[in-house]
Order: sequence, then C-alpha cells, then structure tokens
Amino acid sequence: MMALTRGEKSEVPPTVVPTALHYLQALPETIHWGYFDPARAPALRVKSGDLVQAEAVTHHAGDDPDLLMDEKIWRIFRETPEADRNPGVHIMTGPIFVEGAKPGDTLEVRYLTMQPRMKHGSNLAANWGHLYQEFGEQERVTIYELDSASNTASAHYAYDFKGKYLVPGTVTRCPACERQAALNGVRVPVRPHLGTAGVAPDVSGRVSTIPPGLHGGNIDNWRIGAGATMYYPVQVDGGLFSIGDPHVSQGDGEISGTAIEASLNVLFQIILRKDFSFPSPLLETPKNWIVHGFHEDLNQAMKNASLDMLHLLTEHQGLSRNDAYSLMSVGADFGVTQVVDGTQGIHVRIPRGIFPAQGG
Amino acid sequence: MMALTRGEKSEVPPTVVPTALHYLQALPETIHWGYFDPARAPALRVKSGDLVQAEAVTHHAGDDPDLLMDEKIWRIFRETPEADRNPGVHIMTGPIFVEGAKPGDTLEVRYLTMQPRMKHGSNLAANWGHLYQEFGEQERVTIYELDSASNTASAHYAYDFKGKYLVPGTVTRCPACERQAALNGVRVPVRPHLGTAGVAPDVSGRVSTIPPGLHGGNIDNWRIGAGATMYYPVQVDGGLFSIGDPHVSQGDGEISGTAIEASLNVLFQIILRKDFSFPSPLLETPKNWIVHGFHEDLNQAMKNASLDMLHLLTEHQGLSRNDAYSLMSVGADFGVTQVVDGTQGIHVRIPRGIFPAQGG
Repeated sequence: MMALTRGEKSEVPPTVVPTALHYLQALPETIHWGYFDPARAPALRVKSGDLVQAEAVTHHAGDDPDLLMDEKIWRIFRETPEADRNPGVHIMTGPIFVEGAKPGDTLEVRYLTMQPRMKHGSNLAANWGHLYQEFGEQERVTIYELDSASNTASAHYAYDFKGKYLVPGTVTRCPACERQAALNGVRVPVRPHLGTAGVAPDVSGRVSTIPPGLHGGNIDNWRIGAGATMYYPVQVDGGLFSIGDPHVSQGDGEISGTAIEASLNVLFQIILRKDFSFPSPLLETPKNWIVHGFHEDLNQAMKNASLDMLHLLTEHQGLSRNDAYSLMSVGADFGVTQVVDGTQGIHVRIPRGIFPAQGG
Repeated sequence: MMALTRGEKSEVPPTVVPTALHYLQALPETIHWGYFDPARAPALRVKSGDLVQAEAVTHHAGDDPDLLMDEKIWRIFRETPEADRNPGVHIMTGPIFVEGAKPGDTLEVRYLTMQPRMKHGSNLAANWGHLYQEFGEQERVTIYELDSASNTASAHYAYDFKGKYLVPGTVTRCPACERQAALNGVRVPVRPHLGTAGVAPDVSGRVSTIPPGLHGGNIDNWRIGAGATMYYPVQVDGGLFSIGDPHVSQGDGEISGTAIEASLNVLFQIILRKDFSFPSPLLETPKNWIVHGFHEDLNQAMKNASLDMLHLLTEHQGLSRNDAYSLMSVGADFGVTQVVDGTQGIHVRIPRGIFPAQGG
C-alpha cells in the first residue's frame, strides 16, 4: 500500500516549506490562447516547492470590456491575433517548466488563494449549452457583480447576444445593445476556481483547451479552488503547467455552457512527486478525494470515473477490489461535472475521514 | 407566481398540526411485494395532516436472516409466495389511502424520523451492478454493522454469493458459506432513507417497483431521509402511497446495485396539497430544492432533470426562463442518483437560501 502523503509514521500532514516565490503576470507574451502545446517555450521555470502568484484571465472579458478588462487585459486581447486563438478558446497563463519533472511523475499543485481581479463576471448561455435548442438558439449574456462582504454574486444586467458567439475573445459594446434587468434579489454563492489548468499533453502540435483529459485541462470542477490540491500526471519534460479559464461561480453541470467567468489572481505551490502516480487528474480537498472520468457519452464517463475510483481505493488505500466496490456503492457520491465541453465529465468523491488513521 | 408554501404574508414556515397518529406495521397482509397497483386495497386510510408511524422492511433481509430478520419479518418472507413477488423486488408497506386525494393533487410527505430496526444491513454487489462484468460476474454480499453512538456503519463480514441473485427475498444461510473479513477499520456515515416510496401509477395492473418514475418509486436518493419533504404527483383517487426499500447508507450512483439495505421504522406526516403541483417527484431539504430526471440513458436523464429544474425556477420561483437558465449554470449542482435501476437517475439541487425572502 502506497501512502498518499509522504508523512509516514507522522500524524501531521507534510509541509513543504516554500523555496521561492515567483510572479507570473498574464501578458501577450506569457499566455497561450486556446491550446496546450509541448513545444511552447516556458513563461517561467520553477523548482519543486516554489510558490507562484499568477494571473488567470477570462476569455469572456469582452462580454463587458468596461467592467471586465483593465489595461493589461486589453493588451492581451489587442495583441493576440484572432488567428492565434485556436483550436480552443481559453487564455492560458504559462507554461511553467518544473525542473526535474519527467513523464510518469506527478505535479502536485496546492491552490492556496484565488482572488477576483475585477468586481464583475460574465455568464454566457452559449451555443454549446445543454438547452441551446430549447432556448430557440438565442445566446444571452448575464453580467454578475461580486460582493466580497457576503461572498455572493448578483446579476447586474443581461443582454441577448447578436449573431453567434464563435470567436474567442469577442468584444461586445453593450451601450449599443439593450440592457435588461436580471435575477432581481437572487444571490449566488461565490466559489472561485480554475475551470482549466493542466500539463502539456505528449503530442506534436496544438491540443484544444476545450475537452478535459488525462492531462487535466478544462475539467470545470468548482472544487478546484483555494484549499484544494490537484495531482496532474506529467507527460513531457518539465510538465509545462498552465492555468486559465477562471470562474467565480459554477454549478455542477455548467449547463448553459459557461460559469460566472471572471479573472482571478491565484497563489499556488507546485510540488514534484516522484513517489506518487495516478492515471487521471486527482483532486484532494480537506474532506474528500475526488476522481474524474471523461467521455463524450455520460454513461461511459460514469464507467471511467468508477474504474478510477476503484483504482484509488485499491492502489492507494490498500482495499481489496471487493471491499472497494462495496464501499463505493454505500459511501461514494457521483456528480455531473459538466456536459458542455464536448468530452463530458463525471466526478466521484469519497470522504477522507472514513479510513482508519495511518501511521502514528 | 405560486408560492411553494402556503404561509403567505408569514415569515414562519407553515405548521400543519397533526390530526391523528396511525400505526402501520409491515405484515403479510399490509405489504405488496415487487409492485405498485392502483387496484390494491388500502392497508390504511388517513386524512390530510395525519401522522403515520410505519415499518419499512428490506427485501435483502435474507442475506443474513439471523441478523436482519425478527419473527415479524420472517412472517412476510414465509407467507408471501415467491410467485406473488413481481414484477419488481421491493417489499412495499401500504398502500395508504388519503381521503380526498384526486389525480392532479400533490401528496406532501414530511419524513420526520427514520430509525433502524435491526443492528445490521446488507450490501449486495449485484448482477445489475455497474461493474458486474468487471468483477467477473461474481456477486458478493457484505454485511454491515451499525454503530448508533458514532452514526456510522462498518463491515461485519462478506461472502461470495453462490449462483445468481434472481429471486426477491432469497434467503442465504451463511454458516454454510465462507465468511471473509471486510473493510477493516473503515467507517461509513449512516444516512437512513427510503430507496422506494411513492403513489400508485394510473395504470391497469401491476407496475414494477424497480424503475423510478413520475409517481416516485425507486428514486434511490439518499437525501430522502428524516428532515426531508417529498412532493408526489397524485395519479389515482386516494393517492395510494406506499413505502419500502429502506437503506441506511448509499452513495450517489448506488454503483454496486444496492445500498446498505436495512429495515427502518419511519414516522411521516402526509399533507394533501390542492394548491401545488409539480410534474415529477420533488424533494425539499432544509437547504435545497432537488429535482429528479429519469431515463435509461444518462444523457437524457440529464436533459429531463434540467427541464424540470427550469420548470421549478420559472413556475414556482417566478424567474424568467433566461434568468432561470443562467442561475442553473452558475448555482445548481447536478448529481448522479443511481445507474442501476434500469431507468437511471440524475438529480439537481438549488439552494433555497439564494432567493429573496417572500412575503413579510
């Protein structure tokens, strides 16, 4: 049985004392828009244990540029040609080269803080949304305002999008559109998280940021926020880790196609793990282990998630297959992560506190 | 906009003072095994507002009859012919005829207490389980012991089931099988609930208890426990409400095919609602509204759940369709209820506290 932590014979979780603190701004030269690519030159090089304070910028900032952009975000939109925003849509900050990381290793990324950069965010009911047909193929933007005192968001106004929302980084000037009141009195809990983050896949050329996969990417699990740790399987030298697609609120399912999309400043620590591996992106929160399954068919995503949870319980918690299967049925909760990224997602969580204490 | 409560202009939730308390034992003559049937004679007649203290008996009591049966449960198993246990599997207590209930009305059932009757329960990794093929088509029983002090369950022992588990109410004598240790040190949270409960569908003849549907039935949502309220759409005169399939622990997904199946004693209040309707079984917990979608294809169950949540938000919370869709994307969480009842289930919850206060 391989322990999930390195704190053998210890009752406290392992602390990795930060070795350095890096700053990584999102600038035209430090972002890549719409793709992961192992040939992309690193924007930053770090050592295991280093802290990174990085900017993640939403590709939906153009939905209300006055509220969602500052001058530095404008630079990204102005200076990144439309032709260089493909095949996906997300603005990714990075990549970060982690010294010594090799294929087969794991990047443990501890997300420490996620702070909204602006006071507003945008939700698009998109042409890739789950109920697009049912809404007469009309796309619609709802701009939300964040209230840091209550940690909630409320709708500021909404407008019907003219035409079809196809170009990443579309800029809409809504003084020229009709603003409508929306969701009067409703307050949505704010839970900032990264929709997309991950390592470069081992492929030649660009890979779209849209479908999530074993490298991480567009997982869109709102639990990937401050206090959570992700384990990403390294696929190329240096890992080449990037973050993007910041959200302040999203429901499981992300049914309209987007979250409340809003730029975030993110502090995280990267730890290179050579003693731990997992076949898919694994999420640890203070209370739960969470395993992800992906597939374009939700039925098969469910199967994939259940098989990887079986793997977690047998390989990392030391249970027999039979025991793991029974435990999953009576104590693990499956949820729908998203149904709007082409490759759909199912996640399954098991409480960490139900297992006997290790070591001691 | 129709308010969900009748407490108009009141800031406290409506109290319906109980008018009477009935006892409904589970006996061969007060249960129906494997089916709903509108022609089934009522086991009890109640008025709106009455309390019912009823017994729900697990059809898995035969997995260890020494631990899971008492003499009264034995009577049900002995005196209900195998030929009369069909086309489904669950032992249903009832039906209860609610005076004045007509098709189109709603039965509001407030679940008040759910107490385990015995100290043990059974989980079967079944031939209808999600990973049956991956486990070499071997079925297996794990017997769990409940600890009321910590409100957890731990595995007592396990055994491979010989042959195929096909007959509802199969009785296995495990002194004649090989008992194996299981899940050493693992403690599963206990959350007692009814796997199956609902009204009689408006059909002629027996309807299987296995697939959930608009009448309720085998929803298998572990949130249908004490403190929760269910709204069932009445389909025939009197409603003909029955309960069964008691569980003490189940994960969302119910992946092995069963929960920890264990008999429960259940106190609930039935309130006849002529001022409220909803197209599918609706669940209210102290924190959330939860809507259910069903379909044999999980992708379509997802669509059904999202359409009925849209209905809840527009018809009962008074939101516009556009507002409701945006809110669902940023604040509603979709989960997998179960994938093992033929008709699969997706549920979606929206927090009650995010809406502006009504009345006052």
